Amino acid sequence: MPLPPFTEIAEKLPETVPFVGPESIERRLGRPFKARIGANESGFGPSPKVLSAIRDAAGDIWKYPDPENHELRHALAGFHKIAPDEVSIGEGVDGLMGLVVRLFIGPGDVLLTSHGAYPTLNYHVVGFGGRLEFVPYAGVHEDLDALAEAAQRLRPRIVYVANPDNPMGSYWGPEAIQDFIARIPEDCLIMLDEAYGELAPAGTLPPLDTARTNLLRLRSFSKAYGLAGIRVGYAMGPRRIVGAFNRVRNHFGVNRLAQQAALAALADQDYLAAVKTQIEQSRKQITQIAQENGLSALPSATNFVAVDCGRDGAYATRILEELAHLGIFVRKPGVPPLDRHIRISVGPNPEMAALSEAMPRAISAADQ
Amino acid sequence: MPLPPFTEIAEKLPETVPFVGPESIERRLGRPFKARIGANESGFGPSPKVLSAIRDAAGDIWKYPDPENHELRHALAGFHKIAPDEVSIGEGVDGLMGLVVRLFIGPGDVLLTSHGAYPTLNYHVVGFGGRLEFVPYAGVHEDLDALAEAAQRLRPRIVYVANPDNPMGSYWGPEAIQDFIARIPEDCLIMLDEAYGELAPAGTLPPLDTARTNLLRLRSFSKAYGLAGIRVGYAMGPRRIVGAFNRVRNHFGVNRLAQQAALAALADQDYLAAVKTQIEQSRKQITQIAQENGLSALPSATNFVAVDCGRDGAYATRILEELAHLGIFVRKPGVPPLDRHIRISVGPNPEMAALSEAMPRAISAADQ
Repeated sequence: MPLPPFTEIAEKLPETVPFVGPESIERRLGRPFKARIGANESGFGPSPKVLSAIRDAAGDIWKYPDPENHELRHALAGFHKIAPDEVSIGEGVDGLMGLVVRLFIGPGDVLLTSHGAYPTLNYHVVGFGGRLEFVPYAGVHEDLDALAEAAQRLRPRIVYVANPDNPMGSYWGPEAIQDFIARIPEDCLIMLDEAYGELAPAGTLPPLDTARTNLLRLRSFSKAYGLAGIRVGYAMGPRRIVGAFNRVRNHFGVNRLAQQAALAALADQDYLAAVKTQIEQSRKQITQIAQENGLSALPSATNFVAVDCGRDGAYATRILEELAHLGIFVRKPGVPPLDRHIRISVGPNPEMAALSEAMPRAISAADQ
Repeated sequence: MPLPPFTEIAEKLPETVPFVGPESIERRLGRPFKARIGANESGFGPSPKVLSAIRDAAGDIWKYPDPENHELRHALAGFHKIAPDEVSIGEGVDGLMGLVVRLFIGPGDVLLTSHGAYPTLNYHVVGFGGRLEFVPYAGVHEDLDALAEAAQRLRPRIVYVANPDNPMGSYWGPEAIQDFIARIPEDCLIMLDEAYGELAPAGTLPPLDTARTNLLRLRSFSKAYGLAGIRVGYAMGPRRIVGAFNRVRNHFGVNRLAQQAALAALADQDYLAAVKTQIEQSRKQITQIAQENGLSALPSATNFVAVDCGRDGAYATRILEELAHLGIFVRKPGVPPLDRHIRISVGPNPEMAALSEAMPRAISAADQ
């Protein structure tokens, strides 16, 4: 019997989940995690004012959201001192990445990224029939020199850099990033993922320059703002590129409560400052727990710490699995040589205590 | 200076908003609407249990949503008596339509629909380089015979039918729909949009048959369930097609509160039954207001009533604009001959009173 045929591109795609959710693992293990510190969420949560805003807005949930995200877009433009049509809102950075790829990557077009960088971006590129080119990390950093050199040689449509970096937590300062930007051909779009930007040391992010016609910067409410569940990310850049989202986006895609929650989060910068101190403190706790167990923790400019387990990827995976059995959810990079690390997200004291208790047991089980 | 080139398809697309939101009109007019009865939202709102669920879940908003939508998918499968992998959740029916088009419509591929049917679907088809073919409505109904005949002749990749219909509010019974389904070539996907399905007379929707390999049914929490702001729709059909969403969807796209809200809404079928009575009552009020003003209201199986303004599209547009100036938000079909109607959504008594007061003034202004 003839079946409706998929497009040529869709026919070849696998069914996949770029990240297995902790809920799936909990269902498989048959019990909830004691410490959910694997998805770089913020267990410190959002500002209490955000929760009030959500509860206040709930009664309006029968209304469609504003498809122009007008209030939030204008608030972000004011905050970043750019024009309202230089910012676009999407269903998380993941959703925005899908749109960027759709706008710029046709079948066979190349996106250049680092081997071991954000897998969801790769999912989108493959999903639109694009081709991925990789350069390796230089140690624990994305290799800006190698990326710039490859961009000049391969002439990709897009080059991707995350700063601060995920999954390693490292970062480059503004001079290194600006030097990198200057070396990328003008017809290659630079996708600068700053999802962890609020958590980097002050002065890390280069000033916004929306006159740069090939630079798009992505930001998130999921990390420092503690709103991973609400699905709001935003893109900033020149009008030509930001406006193009209006050619392809799901206009009513950003939920009404999400818009209100993001507005309230942005307005409470005092809370953001306070939570950054908590996150810093928690990074120190993770570092100390790692050291107590003979492992070395990398410096981090994010809300997670990459911990070097000191042997190969298989060994790090064993530790991760033992931790899961002990009720601790963490994740790890999948690509050598990064894969000898596990990636532990910050969290409140009870989560850190659970980690501290589980870690020696996980290591000793993995050692056997 | 060279600019990053868009893909061939994206280059040709216009920036657009398929539906201008009432908020945009309010910003233009400089004041809020008194009656928001234009977007087929449900001013009766969702179940109070939904609002409780949202407020209870707010504290968990720092966690990413479950990317598998496991609980909601299983609840819907149980409710509809199908398998959990025969249902997929998306960011509203709009989001799901985008995915279906992406999976089945490549450059030049044809989607067959009715002239004047849902514009957002057309937006997606154009957005993926597809080609639209249209048949006209037969009076106030989508013309199932003409669609089936054109499907046999044009061999489109997808044929689209809404039942009940938007923007006219008409419907076909199960025999007519099943006869239509049987006439569509097996390699053509039937996209059956049942966003208003809960509001049709009992027995209108044909029984679910996920063994039919070319039938996909779309449902929404935006209409009868009163949750337009939460952005949850779902698709039901054979495993091959429903599973394919996992090749292309934004896995973390459905917000955490949205999943909880939809679960609570589905669980409160008593509220749904009660609100259906209110909606029926409101349809009668709209019909009466139309008649009092010398206009004829069409029968409706939805949460809106199409009102025939009796002359041409320009006249109906004048009435709509006068209503807007009087604080009443309604919409209208854009395509002749449907465009001589205005489409008024149901609402609570204050909204109906405002409509009743404004309608004679709008008509008399339009008559001048």
